[in-house]
Amino acid sequence: MKRAERGFDVVKAGHIEFLVTDLAEARKFYAETLGFVVTESDRTHVYLRGLEDRHHHCLMLTKSDTPGVGHFAFRVTDESELRAVEKMVKGRGWYSRWVDPGEESGQGRALMVEDGFGFPVEFYARMAPEEWLLQKYQDYRGAKVMRLDHFNIMLPDVASAYDWYVGGLGFGCTEITETEGRRPDLWAAWLRRKHTCHDIALTTGKGPRVHHAGFTVSDRASIMDAADLLAASRYLKSMERGPGRHGVSNAFFLYLRDPDGNRIELYTGDYISADPDWVPIRWKLNDPRRQTFWGAPTPKSWFNEAMMVRSPRNGEFRKILAPKIRDRPDYLLSVR
Amino acid sequence: MKRAERGFDVVKAGHIEFLVTDLAEARKFYAETLGFVVTESDRTHVYLRGLEDRHHHCLMLTKSDTPGVGHFAFRVTDESELRAVEKMVKGRGWYSRWVDPGEESGQGRALMVEDGFGFPVEFYARMAPEEWLLQKYQDYRGAKVMRLDHFNIMLPDVASAYDWYVGGLGFGCTEITETEGRRPDLWAAWLRRKHTCHDIALTTGKGPRVHHAGFTVSDRASIMDAADLLAASRYLKSMERGPGRHGVSNAFFLYLRDPDGNRIELYTGDYISADPDWVPIRWKLNDPRRQTFWGAPTPKSWFNEAMMVRSPRNGEFRKILAPKIRDRPDYLLSVR
Amino acid sequence: MKRAERGFDVVKAGHIEFLVTDLAEARKFYAETLGFVVTESDRTHVYLRGLEDRHHHCLMLTKSDTPGVGHFAFRVTDESELRAVEKMVKGRGWYSRWVDPGEESGQGRALMVEDGFGFPVEFYARMAPEEWLLQKYQDYRGAKVMRLDHFNIMLPDVASAYDWYVGGLGFGCTEITETEGRRPDLWAAWLRRKHTCHDIALTTGKGPRVHHAGFTVSDRASIMDAADLLAASRYLKSMERGPGRHGVSNAFFLYLRDPDGNRIELYTGDYISADPDWVPIRWKLNDPRRQTFWGAPTPKSWFNEAMMVRSPRNGEFRKILAPKIRDRPDYLLSVR
Amino acid sequence: MKRAERGFDVVKAGHIEFLVTDLAEARKFYAETLGFVVTESDRTHVYLRGLEDRHHHCLMLTKSDTPGVGHFAFRVTDESELRAVEKMVKGRGWYSRWVDPGEESGQGRALMVEDGFGFPVEFYARMAPEEWLLQKYQDYRGAKVMRLDHFNIMLPDVASAYDWYVGGLGFGCTEITETEGRRPDLWAAWLRRKHTCHDIALTTGKGPRVHHAGFTVSDRASIMDAADLLAASRYLKSMERGPGRHGVSNAFFLYLRDPDGNRIELYTGDYISADPDWVPIRWKLNDPRRQTFWGAPTPKSWFNEAMMVRSPRNGEFRKILAPKIRDRPDYLLSVR
Repeated sequence: MKRAERGFDVVKAGHIEFLVTDLAEARKFYAETLGFVVTESDRTHVYLRGLEDRHHHCLMLTKSDTPGVGHFAFRVTDESELRAVEKMVKGRGWYSRWVDPGEESGQGRALMVEDGFGFPVEFYARMAPEEWLLQKYQDYRGAKVMRLDHFNIMLPDVASAYDWYVGGLGFGCTEITETEGRRPDLWAAWLRRKHTCHDIALTTGKGPRVHHAGFTVSDRASIMDAADLLAASRYLKSMERGPGRHGVSNAFFLYLRDPDGNRIELYTGDYISADPDWVPIRWKLNDPRRQTFWGAPTPKSWFNEAMMVRSPRNGEFRKILAPKIRDRPDYLLSVR
Repeated sequence: MKRAERGFDVVKAGHIEFLVTDLAEARKFYAETLGFVVTESDRTHVYLRGLEDRHHHCLMLTKSDTPGVGHFAFRVTDESELRAVEKMVKGRGWYSRWVDPGEESGQGRALMVEDGFGFPVEFYARMAPEEWLLQKYQDYRGAKVMRLDHFNIMLPDVASAYDWYVGGLGFGCTEITETEGRRPDLWAAWLRRKHTCHDIALTTGKGPRVHHAGFTVSDRASIMDAADLLAASRYLKSMERGPGRHGVSNAFFLYLRDPDGNRIELYTGDYISADPDWVPIRWKLNDPRRQTFWGAPTPKSWFNEAMMVRSPRNGEFRKILAPKIRDRPDYLLSVR
Repeated sequence: MKRAERGFDVVKAGHIEFLVTDLAEARKFYAETLGFVVTESDRTHVYLRGLEDRHHHCLMLTKSDTPGVGHFAFRVTDESELRAVEKMVKGRGWYSRWVDPGEESGQGRALMVEDGFGFPVEFYARMAPEEWLLQKYQDYRGAKVMRLDHFNIMLPDVASAYDWYVGGLGFGCTEITETEGRRPDLWAAWLRRKHTCHDIALTTGKGPRVHHAGFTVSDRASIMDAADLLAASRYLKSMERGPGRHGVSNAFFLYLRDPDGNRIELYTGDYISADPDWVPIRWKLNDPRRQTFWGAPTPKSWFNEAMMVRSPRNGEFRKILAPKIRDRPDYLLSVR
Repeated sequence: MKRAERGFDVVKAGHIEFLVTDLAEARKFYAETLGFVVTESDRTHVYLRGLEDRHHHCLMLTKSDTPGVGHFAFRVTDESELRAVEKMVKGRGWYSRWVDPGEESGQGRALMVEDGFGFPVEFYARMAPEEWLLQKYQDYRGAKVMRLDHFNIMLPDVASAYDWYVGGLGFGCTEITETEGRRPDLWAAWLRRKHTCHDIALTTGKGPRVHHAGFTVSDRASIMDAADLLAASRYLKSMERGPGRHGVSNAFFLYLRDPDGNRIELYTGDYISADPDWVPIRWKLNDPRRQTFWGAPTPKSWFNEAMMVRSPRNGEFRKILAPKIRDRPDYLLSVR
């Protein structure tokens, strides 16, 4: 489906809402330790941005009894396009509702959707501008987080979600993982609107769950400095995996769990994917360098745990369903 | 002018042709020392690509009696769009001619234009695919050049060229430099199609000339390793400026002159500019951190010298005209 | 025991001899891939040095039916001092024999000792000078190995070896690990003559075995570049552990197994230990940050496997004895 | 002269006293911006150490009407050795006086000398221990300064000072610069006691003056981060030279002027010089890569300006004398 049929353009992964049980603890982790910038906060929310961001927030922390993800959001080019999104969503029979300007602080009018895979996805065009801190080097702290890069979601049926993101929303596909065999299944896909490796990755697993949100840092040194910093402070156990190199995306990574167990990735080193004739890079599920280019083992928590998502219809967490195909490489089948 | 009126989309800065007097010497510099990958070569050309490139070439070296630039080229999304480009160019009364597929090795059908500012600019959609070397780390050499990032051109009248690139070709503007005073002139502009700081920069000076082509490397370490390597080999004098940090673009840079004096920039550290409401960053010409964030002086050759361009009409080098406004900051007026 | 009583000064860890079953394969690994510089080679030996070395070799590969360590060697300040070493060794009733100049290529007269712990240790003063390649950046390859830093040996009785190295040979102690409890045992010690963290580390385990030889690289980037390079070439499985940060020594590390399973460490980031009143840094065996500052798990091979040593008396490999105290932290007792 | 004749061992460059006109401003520069750690302060002094230091101070700021250097100091191995130093100094007819324990905070008994070249040099053995912050990564700030590395002094007669440091104090010489011609003069020497490139450098110029004190940082990234930080804060003009690579010492450097114009070097990337048969690396004064390996020009202030030294006899600044030979390379003779 081309743009003319869609009537709108998704720009990029815009922001994500993490549910946290202790707002002060979460702020200590994200702002004071990792160096996210606090744009605004109140008794139930902290709105954070990266050093490269020129808008109100890319990460929103919301006080909650239970951790997880409230919603994640894509930016579209113009507010007038949101009705086209609504039309497409309604055409699929999915739930949606309008979010008033300012209902989420800093944000213009938005459309909140529960997609057919169970994820709470928001579409918005306007976000309040904020000062650019990219060259305020004197304010750099911690991991020197630059910006949100992508969401990684787990769900039982990747192929259907691929159709929606590529066919419906016009995402390009940069890399895929497929199962072994003569008639391979699509196991995971890395999809982008902006010109990087991805804005969203779809991976096979129990879901709907959000596996992590990826945030960009400038270079490998920032990631290793963050690892030293976290180990030296009281966040040793927050480091779940890495630093290491992914085969997929070529990114240099460090995965962290916040005090509530919500997962983020510090991420650097992918590529520019602007070419219109980009042929997806293909990986086999069992290729050991796909997951970790250097071959180091992945902890089982990384495969088994992910963030529950809250339904925008009733505020309850979505029930988890099992995948139709196996959710990990053969060499990790015993890791449960 | 919106896309519908244009009828085409420019994707990115695609490739550049450097004229060199000694092909073997140029190859030694670009391929053996800096680590560009040779895709193809014959008696009069060497076609080079970066480690991140998936296509035939981003740098083309052509044997010539005189150094300079043969042409630079933008990629458009589809070959069917080239007629829309031709129509727009003809509407302005500029010279253009069709380039047959393969006339430039690896390239599909293309439109060669001499724009109204005197620059030889090619538009093309197809380029032969080549193996991706991004994860062939065993083949990394020298400066580990990833890809072409941008062209920087000098011309007497930046404001008119700005209208063509932004109004005609649909580029976005990420940063500008303007002169001091209550009614400032536009002195330079950084314009992009892909989601980085720029695909082309327009700067005030004697022209039409190409100041440099910028190539991306992964990190600051690659640039410093390149500086050590060049100093230790016989290319000490090839290093014209840097390593240093630009205020504009925030890039970490090293400027090099090839054995013929053609200039390239090794470049890293800019930002993602996908947001549709990007407000250009504004710099004053006399701000010392604009040119060199760290304040180190710029050698006069950097202001005085640039590459001549060859007319696609007759193969002769274009005559140089003086700018209408001063071509450098006040603190450098004495540097001539 | 002071210098006057000893009559000699040990300068530093000087070189090590690795036994390899396939000299061509070993050379491919060390020279062509990791970038060690070949000073000399013949049908049964390859002599290698680092980019910072100004002498003939710091790593010597010897063709052998069985992998392992032929000997490791300490440099003393002057050849005239070797008799003082011999006297001390004889006083302890240990085996020693003189090695003629050139018997080991590039080396002056030397004393080969089998110490009371079963290790083949050579003492020498003179080594043929070689060109310094530190600023020949154009010759940097692979992991850009600078120099030998230290030996790490495993043996059942660390306390006795500590007495010999500190009391007999005049080493300083920079860090120790001791067991838990009110009357802790000395579990490991990091000992130095040159002004770094160590020239030799003594660790508790089945022995006599050499756990690894540590080679210095300039920075963390070199180690990560090496990891990418090894993963991309056919040495993915050579990476046993890391990259990571040690708590002990503060070093940033990557452990590699050569094609024969011999182990080296790429190592950077320790400190200058020149102060005469240096108080050893004390670690408890069960402190998780001691081994890996970032908390990542250590593969069991790292605890279970080490290099056999060949006796200088008869050329046979020394029998392995079990340690008197446990050989790993509690949290790794199940890893066997 | 061997140790036995000297009766003492110098360990390393220990600390330096900078005279500053505004203690609060100086503290803001060194502690808050560059990240030196404040061990102690009172109304007229601030005592600073690096992250790797385990003792009270390596940099001492003293309130003064005039900037400059109060003294610089070498650590010896034991307090009992100071009498041997005194004897040697008296033998040369130089001024000396005893400094009581605590007269300089944190320091044991010391001998203050005015050497025959006009420099105020202190010898001490004991300094109060302080907490090691090397692995307190959460406290790393600014340039992440690790430790004092060396002093660089300018004086008219380098050859005589060389005799004192090498012949009298037992320093080793790692590198020298000599003038061109068949009978070259010694123009500069890099001398060390600890196993690095140098503890003190002697360079030809108007003197006695201290050109700079060099402080070690861990890697090149720290230096570039410091450059960004200084440029972004109000210290743009504090950056006098660099970042760049020295040919001599192979160090990666950044030279800074504090708010009073006192000069320090941030320094990384030299080598281990433990070998007893080290043959000095020889450089010709006019070799362009000697000063700046990458060939970038040196600002004239770097050659013309240095810190005055205060006489320990009367507290007055020493008169400056002209050198006997030219004080800079031919290509810089016009830079005055």
